[in-house]
Amino acid sequence: MNAPTPAEHLLPHVHQREVPAACIDALRQRFGERCSTALAVREQHGRDESSFAAPPPAAVVFAESTADVAAAVALASQYRVPVIPFGVGSSLEGHLLAVQGGISLDVGRMNQVLSVNAEDLTVTVQPGVTRKQLNEAIRSTGLFFPIDPGADASIGGMCATRASGTNAVRYGTMRENVLGLEVVTASGEVIRTGTRARKSSAGYDLTRLMVGSEGTLGVITEITLRIYPLPEAVSAAVCSFPSIEAAVRTTIQIIQIGIPIARVELIDSNTVRMVNAHAKLGLREEPMLLMEFHGSPAGVQEQAQQVQEIASEHGGNAFEWASTPEERTRLWTARHNAYFAAIQSRPGCRAISTDTCVPISRLADCLLDSVAEADASGIPYFLVGHVGDGNFHFGYLLDPAIPQERVTAEQLNHQLVARALALGGTCSGEHGVGLHKMEFLRTEAGDGAVAMMRTIKQALDPHNILNPGKIFAL
Amino acid sequence: MNAPTPAEHLLPHVHQREVPAACIDALRQRFGERCSTALAVREQHGRDESSFAAPPPAAVVFAESTADVAAAVALASQYRVPVIPFGVGSSLEGHLLAVQGGISLDVGRMNQVLSVNAEDLTVTVQPGVTRKQLNEAIRSTGLFFPIDPGADASIGGMCATRASGTNAVRYGTMRENVLGLEVVTASGEVIRTGTRARKSSAGYDLTRLMVGSEGTLGVITEITLRIYPLPEAVSAAVCSFPSIEAAVRTTIQIIQIGIPIARVELIDSNTVRMVNAHAKLGLREEPMLLMEFHGSPAGVQEQAQQVQEIASEHGGNAFEWASTPEERTRLWTARHNAYFAAIQSRPGCRAISTDTCVPISRLADCLLDSVAEADASGIPYFLVGHVGDGNFHFGYLLDPAIPQERVTAEQLNHQLVARALALGGTCSGEHGVGLHKMEFLRTEAGDGAVAMMRTIKQALDPHNILNPGKIFAL
Repeated sequence: MNAPTPAEHLLPHVHQREVPAACIDALRQRFGERCSTALAVREQHGRDESSFAAPPPAAVVFAESTADVAAAVALASQYRVPVIPFGVGSSLEGHLLAVQGGISLDVGRMNQVLSVNAEDLTVTVQPGVTRKQLNEAIRSTGLFFPIDPGADASIGGMCATRASGTNAVRYGTMRENVLGLEVVTASGEVIRTGTRARKSSAGYDLTRLMVGSEGTLGVITEITLRIYPLPEAVSAAVCSFPSIEAAVRTTIQIIQIGIPIARVELIDSNTVRMVNAHAKLGLREEPMLLMEFHGSPAGVQEQAQQVQEIASEHGGNAFEWASTPEERTRLWTARHNAYFAAIQSRPGCRAISTDTCVPISRLADCLLDSVAEADASGIPYFLVGHVGDGNFHFGYLLDPAIPQERVTAEQLNHQLVARALALGGTCSGEHGVGLHKMEFLRTEAGDGAVAMMRTIKQALDPHNILNPGKIFAL
Repeated sequence: MNAPTPAEHLLPHVHQREVPAACIDALRQRFGERCSTALAVREQHGRDESSFAAPPPAAVVFAESTADVAAAVALASQYRVPVIPFGVGSSLEGHLLAVQGGISLDVGRMNQVLSVNAEDLTVTVQPGVTRKQLNEAIRSTGLFFPIDPGADASIGGMCATRASGTNAVRYGTMRENVLGLEVVTASGEVIRTGTRARKSSAGYDLTRLMVGSEGTLGVITEITLRIYPLPEAVSAAVCSFPSIEAAVRTTIQIIQIGIPIARVELIDSNTVRMVNAHAKLGLREEPMLLMEFHGSPAGVQEQAQQVQEIASEHGGNAFEWASTPEERTRLWTARHNAYFAAIQSRPGCRAISTDTCVPISRLADCLLDSVAEADASGIPYFLVGHVGDGNFHFGYLLDPAIPQERVTAEQLNHQLVARALALGGTCSGEHGVGLHKMEFLRTEAGDGAVAMMRTIKQALDPHNILNPGKIFAL
């Protein structure tokens, strides 16, 4: 008898719903070659960046239009078959796994930038457009889209998980930057939420109900986003600190006095080492803040000077400037690749990422105790943080051959989440709940609020076909 | 036979649901003197600042705690009786009217600031706290709450209508500034949404589902808000323009190049005249922008200089500075009282306010055609606008003795909304739907999206007791 693998240990009770042959036939008839049952294709769509495993979906449908999505969902509805939207596969919490079977609906080919309204600071895109692709497409307008999770995620996926990233401290998250959506509902109907106006009080906020719903309430087929003028001046700086605490206390003060810093990222010394090795950089291997300032030339200078003073008070040194765009890009690329740098530092490992976010004044309390616990555990880890938001990530790097490591890492994660919740924070700042944080969500939101979420899910998806088994058990 | 009054003409089909004597008895037993059936009290709670009329509620309950609200809603649920939350009565769209009968639940006595977390830039308040009261309470911390509808509205009411005001162009609306809520659901259960963390991806965004739901999905009993450091420097300026168009084109350019202006308000010459008369000011009776800049001393100077240059290009003149806090307060108080100044300019009149909001580049198109139509109609009106957001308000000042005026005003409003929607905008920037914009919402959102809203309503409030008959017919 084979013992379950450590990954399978973690999956909630899985009930694979059957996909009838008639459903596959109907999909084939509608989509032809764009409906695949090849094992390699199914396996590629049956996993994400999480450390979970589940059987692959029964089929993968490649949608090229809203009509395609509507047709696929209508067939899934007719046959009561789960349908799981798939962008680029970069989710971290098992969102894409077919835990109840069903079909994967790949919207990666819906990758057109549909309209750029530069004069209104809005853009409308299909869900398969990635954040880098979007910024390439609007570069000539002098505008940019600031939300930047580590991966080059799809905009649809970023909506689904309410993503953010390094610029959120100044520009907000997907919650603040999605103006409107086109959505295919559970019955295969197409609706629109929101308009291109910056604000609205017209009825329930369906846009924000969909943003963060992880594919469980509808399939997003079009997104209208806010975009921003590229700042007149940008300057980035690196500052090393004698301790993580000093870096964190510097951050807290920056936020409390209201300096409109654009980015302020913590990287611990160990992770700086991994990043140096991966990106061939020579950063000082000490706890570090990586910062960026946006504004007018005078404004940027003023902000930077204030921050430099605060950092000095906390023993920050070696305030180094990245003044050219190339240097800045190199630094931020290295930061965005920290996850991959860490993975490569322990060949064959899988990472479990934490994602707590706490009120800014509690950041030091939350972070330092968790660092002590992680150090004591002996498990290799990386630590990076969007500390201006009170959000940070431990990534515990697990050897799959040592099951005890996973047990220990999950225990560290539980302790960290319990600490964050006790401090008024959340279990997830930006990755979403997926499979991994369902228990955490119950603890955080309480049974009443989760029951309300479930009631909404049941009302909008009565046959439970849209990415079932995520966020809460159903 | 009496003809219906013009106000009654506008009400949707009204079905008064009976409030059984046993329900009133049960409320009396629970609330004693705090359950009133006195006609004067009921009448005061059966109207708002809109021009609508409906029979008053059968009783008014004065809640002093979450437990009170839960008990009142539980009784309403038991007897299947509508319950309408009431803050200070300043809504503009008939939100408070008991169109289906029922009881008014006055939360005005729940007016405690529960906690100020200055170091986290958050505050937690009861729903009856007003925006001015909140700012008084936190003044000593060096922080402020920016959202400022014209009236000194309650924070609970501001959540319910997704309110904004003059600072929204820089600080966002209630949508962006509510972190979490305590809510009594339709069954009388108490739930919490959100945390004190600045961002979260933990499950459905119930906070933003409640914000803007106009009392139809739950009764808000506690609110956690973001607050902001008072800017180091503030400066306000008034600039007159040869035409509304010149003022609007100046605004568009300010927004498009990304100047972080804190406030930019349009007042047309006619309204300046009303404001001068009401507030004893000597503002030039020309189309005017009233602006405010927040930041460091150098930053404020830089912004103001850029804006002054843009204004000059459009013929703006008489850029006058209000440098002392007293002068600024006087100007902004006059702006906030524009509605009341206008009402007083035509004794005995009732106002119908429009509330369209369009993408910034379409603001001139939307506004100028509507001004021409309003001028041609001969109906007195005021015109003010949070033009930095693309949001503006006509207030048509109606003589109730001349029914034709209402017909004409509603026609103007319809034309304006149709224009705004065609330009990618919304029928309501900040006032909500209430009774008055149900048809506009259908046109704007489409039947599919409104059906989704209705499905959510039915799932969360199966007996349709929470402020029924608002937002959509049900």
